[in-house]
Amino acid sequence: MSAQYVYAFGDGKADGTAGMKNLLGGKGAGLAEMSNLGVPVPAGFTITTEMCTVYYKMNRKYPKELDGQIRKAMAKVEKIMGAKFGDEKNPLLVSVRSGARVSMPGMMDTVLNLGLNDKTVKGLIAKSGNERFGWDSYRRFVQMYGDVVLGLKPESKEEEDPFEVVLSKMKKSLGVKLDTDLSAKDLKKLVAEFKALIKKRKGVEFPEDPWKQVWGAIEAVFGSWNGARAIKYRKLNGIPEDWGTAVNVQAMVYGNMGEDSGTGVAFTRDPATGKNLFFGEYLINAQGEDVVAGIRTPQPVNDSTKSDKSQVTLQKAMPKAYKTLESIYLKLEKHFKEMQDIEFTIQRGKLWMLQTRTGKRTAAAAVKIAVDMVREKLIDKKIAVGRIEPSQLDQLLHPTFDPKAKKNVIAKGLPASPGAASGRVVFHSDDAESWAAKGEKVILVRIETSPEDIGGMNVAQGILTAFGGMTSHAAVVARGMGKCCVAGCGGIEVDYKSKLFKVKNMTIKEGDWISLDGSKGEVMLGQVATVHPDLSGDFGKIMGWADEIRKIGVRTNADTPHDSAVAVKFGAEGIGLCRTEHMFFEGDRIKAMREMILADDVAGREKALAKILPYQRDDFYGIFKVMAGRPVTIRLLDPPLHEFLPQETQNQAEMAKEMKVPAAKIKAKVASLHEINPMLGHRGCRLGITYPEISAMQARAIFEAACLLKKKEKIDSHPEVMIPLVGTIGEFNHQKTVIDKAAQEVFAKYKFKIEYMVGTMIEIPRAALVADKIAENAEFFSFGTNDLTQMGFGYSRDDAGKFLPSYVDLGILPEDPFQVLDQEGIGQLVQLGIERGRKTRKKLKVGICGEHGGEPKSVEFCHRVGMNYVSCSPYRVPVARLAAAHAVLKESKKQEEKDK
Amino acid sequence: MSAQYVYAFGDGKADGTAGMKNLLGGKGAGLAEMSNLGVPVPAGFTITTEMCTVYYKMNRKYPKELDGQIRKAMAKVEKIMGAKFGDEKNPLLVSVRSGARVSMPGMMDTVLNLGLNDKTVKGLIAKSGNERFGWDSYRRFVQMYGDVVLGLKPESKEEEDPFEVVLSKMKKSLGVKLDTDLSAKDLKKLVAEFKALIKKRKGVEFPEDPWKQVWGAIEAVFGSWNGARAIKYRKLNGIPEDWGTAVNVQAMVYGNMGEDSGTGVAFTRDPATGKNLFFGEYLINAQGEDVVAGIRTPQPVNDSTKSDKSQVTLQKAMPKAYKTLESIYLKLEKHFKEMQDIEFTIQRGKLWMLQTRTGKRTAAAAVKIAVDMVREKLIDKKIAVGRIEPSQLDQLLHPTFDPKAKKNVIAKGLPASPGAASGRVVFHSDDAESWAAKGEKVILVRIETSPEDIGGMNVAQGILTAFGGMTSHAAVVARGMGKCCVAGCGGIEVDYKSKLFKVKNMTIKEGDWISLDGSKGEVMLGQVATVHPDLSGDFGKIMGWADEIRKIGVRTNADTPHDSAVAVKFGAEGIGLCRTEHMFFEGDRIKAMREMILADDVAGREKALAKILPYQRDDFYGIFKVMAGRPVTIRLLDPPLHEFLPQETQNQAEMAKEMKVPAAKIKAKVASLHEINPMLGHRGCRLGITYPEISAMQARAIFEAACLLKKKEKIDSHPEVMIPLVGTIGEFNHQKTVIDKAAQEVFAKYKFKIEYMVGTMIEIPRAALVADKIAENAEFFSFGTNDLTQMGFGYSRDDAGKFLPSYVDLGILPEDPFQVLDQEGIGQLVQLGIERGRKTRKKLKVGICGEHGGEPKSVEFCHRVGMNYVSCSPYRVPVARLAAAHAVLKESKKQEEKDK
Repeated sequence: MSAQYVYAFGDGKADGTAGMKNLLGGKGAGLAEMSNLGVPVPAGFTITTEMCTVYYKMNRKYPKELDGQIRKAMAKVEKIMGAKFGDEKNPLLVSVRSGARVSMPGMMDTVLNLGLNDKTVKGLIAKSGNERFGWDSYRRFVQMYGDVVLGLKPESKEEEDPFEVVLSKMKKSLGVKLDTDLSAKDLKKLVAEFKALIKKRKGVEFPEDPWKQVWGAIEAVFGSWNGARAIKYRKLNGIPEDWGTAVNVQAMVYGNMGEDSGTGVAFTRDPATGKNLFFGEYLINAQGEDVVAGIRTPQPVNDSTKSDKSQVTLQKAMPKAYKTLESIYLKLEKHFKEMQDIEFTIQRGKLWMLQTRTGKRTAAAAVKIAVDMVREKLIDKKIAVGRIEPSQLDQLLHPTFDPKAKKNVIAKGLPASPGAASGRVVFHSDDAESWAAKGEKVILVRIETSPEDIGGMNVAQGILTAFGGMTSHAAVVARGMGKCCVAGCGGIEVDYKSKLFKVKNMTIKEGDWISLDGSKGEVMLGQVATVHPDLSGDFGKIMGWADEIRKIGVRTNADTPHDSAVAVKFGAEGIGLCRTEHMFFEGDRIKAMREMILADDVAGREKALAKILPYQRDDFYGIFKVMAGRPVTIRLLDPPLHEFLPQETQNQAEMAKEMKVPAAKIKAKVASLHEINPMLGHRGCRLGITYPEISAMQARAIFEAACLLKKKEKIDSHPEVMIPLVGTIGEFNHQKTVIDKAAQEVFAKYKFKIEYMVGTMIEIPRAALVADKIAENAEFFSFGTNDLTQMGFGYSRDDAGKFLPSYVDLGILPEDPFQVLDQEGIGQLVQLGIERGRKTRKKLKVGICGEHGGEPKSVEFCHRVGMNYVSCSPYRVPVARLAAAHAVLKESKKQEEKDK
Repeated sequence: MSAQYVYAFGDGKADGTAGMKNLLGGKGAGLAEMSNLGVPVPAGFTITTEMCTVYYKMNRKYPKELDGQIRKAMAKVEKIMGAKFGDEKNPLLVSVRSGARVSMPGMMDTVLNLGLNDKTVKGLIAKSGNERFGWDSYRRFVQMYGDVVLGLKPESKEEEDPFEVVLSKMKKSLGVKLDTDLSAKDLKKLVAEFKALIKKRKGVEFPEDPWKQVWGAIEAVFGSWNGARAIKYRKLNGIPEDWGTAVNVQAMVYGNMGEDSGTGVAFTRDPATGKNLFFGEYLINAQGEDVVAGIRTPQPVNDSTKSDKSQVTLQKAMPKAYKTLESIYLKLEKHFKEMQDIEFTIQRGKLWMLQTRTGKRTAAAAVKIAVDMVREKLIDKKIAVGRIEPSQLDQLLHPTFDPKAKKNVIAKGLPASPGAASGRVVFHSDDAESWAAKGEKVILVRIETSPEDIGGMNVAQGILTAFGGMTSHAAVVARGMGKCCVAGCGGIEVDYKSKLFKVKNMTIKEGDWISLDGSKGEVMLGQVATVHPDLSGDFGKIMGWADEIRKIGVRTNADTPHDSAVAVKFGAEGIGLCRTEHMFFEGDRIKAMREMILADDVAGREKALAKILPYQRDDFYGIFKVMAGRPVTIRLLDPPLHEFLPQETQNQAEMAKEMKVPAAKIKAKVASLHEINPMLGHRGCRLGITYPEISAMQARAIFEAACLLKKKEKIDSHPEVMIPLVGTIGEFNHQKTVIDKAAQEVFAKYKFKIEYMVGTMIEIPRAALVADKIAENAEFFSFGTNDLTQMGFGYSRDDAGKFLPSYVDLGILPEDPFQVLDQEGIGQLVQLGIERGRKTRKKLKVGICGEHGGEPKSVEFCHRVGMNYVSCSPYRVPVARLAAAHAVLKESKKQEEKDK
């Protein structure tokens, strides 16, 4: 039996189901499922994603059996729709669309009205009784096919769309303004001119044979899977190349058959806020692409989303169709138990569903929908937690504009994607990327966005467009990215050439600062102050559920009482990394630190360190107090000493004057501390071993703070003293001896003891390899995956910018390993370290304190390898909590699949 | 049954044997074996090394049974020697000496004449009939015991020995010059004064009880095992701490009982040249320590070592004793099948053997003795090869003075240890160490050396002493270290205070250059030119035998035809690392290289690279020609580009002028290429990926050279192109594609193919971890253990000098991991890399090209983990060949022990 590459649907039944998303793509599975549910769907068939993979494996060829399968499926469609593909009298017209497993908005190309030629157009005219409609459909088809399949596109950024040039010329010569002003005759002439243009520019005849047209379109869909835009999108979104795309061939229905026709897109709930209301837009007498492309500003489907009185809702304009639509959307949401993003067309009053899929939403909406659906008993808590993307959560944790801040609102648009963003205005995607690369915050301002702008949108703080509705490209993509977007801001007049936009009587130039409020649709001049987010309500509920599910702890990286307090509010269960660097830098301490560095002997260093001790004791006191008995992992001094001395001659002179020492002494010290590779130099425990008095002072400050807090305020502390940069058991033992001695001295003074642990960072590759030995005396490990990545890869984080981005572009690395832990390589060191450490010390406490501790994929890894906790910056704590819950959910899902 | 801690010997039998060296120490095992052989040995007993370990484990206490075992052994000695320990009339006197597994000259302390007190001295006088001898022995004992056991030593460098101060004072007050001028009465008075001095300075009474004396001495021997000097020696020589030392208690015999008595040390063959002649020195009427300490210049034992006519040989002075000695040395060498270092004492005409052990020798002597003994059928080839220490071989491979060079010989001493050394004069061990740390070559000049000078001797190029013979401390230690030494150079007058020495009418000050010829005993002014060594003869034989034994290949690191030729002469079987850096630096190439770096685009870079291509092709042509078909591993460009640009403003200006570009452009390029951690920056294959045109040019040069050589001279080449700094399979694949493409292009041009391989350095920790993946396409691995050590430990080699020496001193690391491969940690990465690589590609060729490739312990490791070859600098090639043979010998020895 040969493989089934083609799956038909229509007339209340289908070969496929919703569960076959991987094979049929999201759109194909949705169409099949809708058909199975009895929802009116134009008949059609799906060529599987598997076919795409086979196509590439066979070097862009097809297996023999495909043709037969397609012809058979087409025959089914003909039967259901009562028309014949290529028939001159009663032609079946089809659309050809891509459909990958996950939606890739705008990435893949679509062809409508396929099957038209000089003969079948007459049949269409006869069937529709509308000559103008027939020729308009035909000229749209030729234009679309010419662009998408035959590749007649502008050759440079400056060039306008060549078809549009011909169109404009005709309109000008006829003295008309709108496309709709063109007559059937004009359109017929346009078809001929378009075909001539194709012949001239591409050297090929436009194919009159409908089957040739179909094969060309299929080829174009598959081809676009490996187009530059699709590749870029996949890279940005982590979609594997071998997933492939399906092709959906479906009978055409027309929203542009007159005032009793229309087309629209809708969400079953509000994708921005999550409110449970039917949310959508439509256009009368238009084809589907017109809504998505954002060329005409669409109208709301009902009153709940109406924003001004002049708008006419679908509910009012076509009450019967609206009622059907309403019953269908309710049916679909109930069936899928998930918010749906649907596309529909009304042809002469009859409603057809063209698509249903899980709707993209903002983080806030995701949280509200999930919690609401639990309340509505549609889903359970686990599913609710699983539906919130940890990486998306970030949006909710970051500031919004301060309501009390002064705002100079210069324009209003649609609140397309919530958030508060300030940045400098740029007008081109390229510029956005190059400015951002230089560290600038930018707002990308476009008349409307297209898939070419993905790169710029990705790096921008926010997006502002002059045209397009809530479901325009800009809006959909921005929401997906969790980026603030104000769309359809008609008040602004964008001039790409002069790189400026005008609003009212102001001119905003490239580089000027503006702020966007994506929740209100406001555009403000300058930078506006922000406030912290509210973490209670639905958000709190979801986080609570996540905490019930997750197994590993979540701590924070914090080194001040303030940050500690913020982190506790975000749910941190302890401090996983308290860096002590700033405790040597702040205020007067730097003077004592410099005195220590310049000292010639132990006595001189001890004298200087004695001055720093009380400050550090106070620091720890404050942190221990806030943490109120939660564990606090304190890393002893880590950076090389040269970081504490001024490098510039002038600053050295100032320091010399202040310290009353010759400038030459400072210069000489700076020179003697200079290192070729400071990253691999005299730092971490290497400092503590050369100058044990530094470690002794820090340990003393820690234990004195803990004792004082207990004595004065009866608050317990659980310090975990962490020795940095250990590579050998000898280093660890040396420093542990110093720490234990300080502890004993302090406890003797206070006449009571504090429970404490001494452990180490595992951040040197060798440490992971000899973890069994280190665990003989180390009571805990904390993986410093930043340095482990630096040394394991041999990448200096400060310098890797010169090659790392191109490594990701070339596919040498799937991701920047400083952002997402490299599980293939560095992960092995982590796993080895844990296994060997626990072999020696069964109950060894293990955590991570690199920046990966707040990155969802990495958190899942940490869960999988059996860490006790992850630690991350305060604002990432909720992300980590949720990611930790997801790790458990994924694990049980895998287990369930295995058990099957 | 309790453990046996005491082993007796004497009177033709012994509890122990030569095979029990680990338990009895070298000296104890030698005494037992001699006793078993019927050689006259004063009776005694050995307290085992195990006891030393137990002693430290019990916190410096002894197990109960020890006392009984010692008393029983002492009773045996009393019986054999016909005297009684502590007896007033017929006292048995003993020596107490240390004896570790391996000889540690001067490191451990010795006490002679133990058992004397105010009463037993009278018995000794009565027995010897010599009052002066009795009191002299007593005062020597008190002095030695006071120093070694009771710790009365100079408290600072400036202070003279306190006992010597008292002695000098007495001599002065009596108006005499020599110790021998002192009468029995004077010596008696001295004993009392010495005892008073001990009481005053150390606050303890000198113990009169002989048993207390014995226990004190045992304690001192064990204690000295952990003295600073012993620890330092162990560290320098890689002797484990837990080996411990034995204690030998042995009846005294006296070489200072008059003109019919004497003492001496001898070697059964010449330890400097290896010649088969009995080689030794003696002193009439002296105790053993007098010879070793080098205070009096001893006389030769026979004519073969006589250097001037005034000397009186033992053969002449005491022909009977000499004859006995001769028969004993022949017996011993035949028995041990090894050159022996023996100590003897003649008491009133009777010869006693005090020690026999394997004699230390120079590398040249070791080679000659080994080859001679094979000729003499004493040993087989394997044993001969096993007897040459690879690390010692270095001496033979380095230059000697050019016989044609002008030499200004200013003094002559004894040729104590061969070699040619030039350096700047220093007079103190500390100074030698601090000068050497600054990179200075120094010659340590001393009146005589003592164990305190070990550190300085170790760093010096050579050692020159004014006193002491061929068996003096300086001579023995220098030979052990393979260092050039001229000893007993009476013509020089050393003034420590003014830091100068006078010779004839010249004054040589600290810092002046001198040269030493250790084979001739010549001291020359200034630096003298050198010539290369001869590698034929015995040396060639040994190397040939080693080649028969070894299993892994030995290649060299060479990047010029000259170095390649030297290496082939030394036996290199290929090039394991041909660096290509200098091929971009030399002559005019640097201009083109700079042009390439400054180019703005690929075209500009390719234009500049085209200028470098012919040079590199010629380079490879020359190397391939010399290597004549042997494999040549070529590493593509590795260092970061900034190394090719001038860093100083002035040099930048010059470059700008020469290249006719604005200086600002160069400055800007230098700034843009600056890196915080260049070691972890944009270098290695990262460069080749950013600028594939560089790799392409290098590959082209390699293949064109190989094709040309074949075409023009019919010589084959086997290039192995090595991609540096690979961490991911993606990097490897990228560069392999570039290389293969260049190969195909060149082969197409020449219309024939060259066999080549493409492989990679494994020098990034991650590469070792994902070696299974990399081996999918890499045809060979070469471990770059320099960088692997840098990244695995997180040590920048350029900066680690700030902490690494103290790590070795503190015992945190056993050795500098850049010198000796860290098998515990980095070795794991190597092993993992090989295992995983071979899992994917069974026949994967694996080598090492870090500097460890020429270090004997590391070579053994490379053999053990199954590498195909090691690669090292040309001069290390013979060392590696020998070390590789040793690895096989050790392995079969282990296997034999396992099979038992």
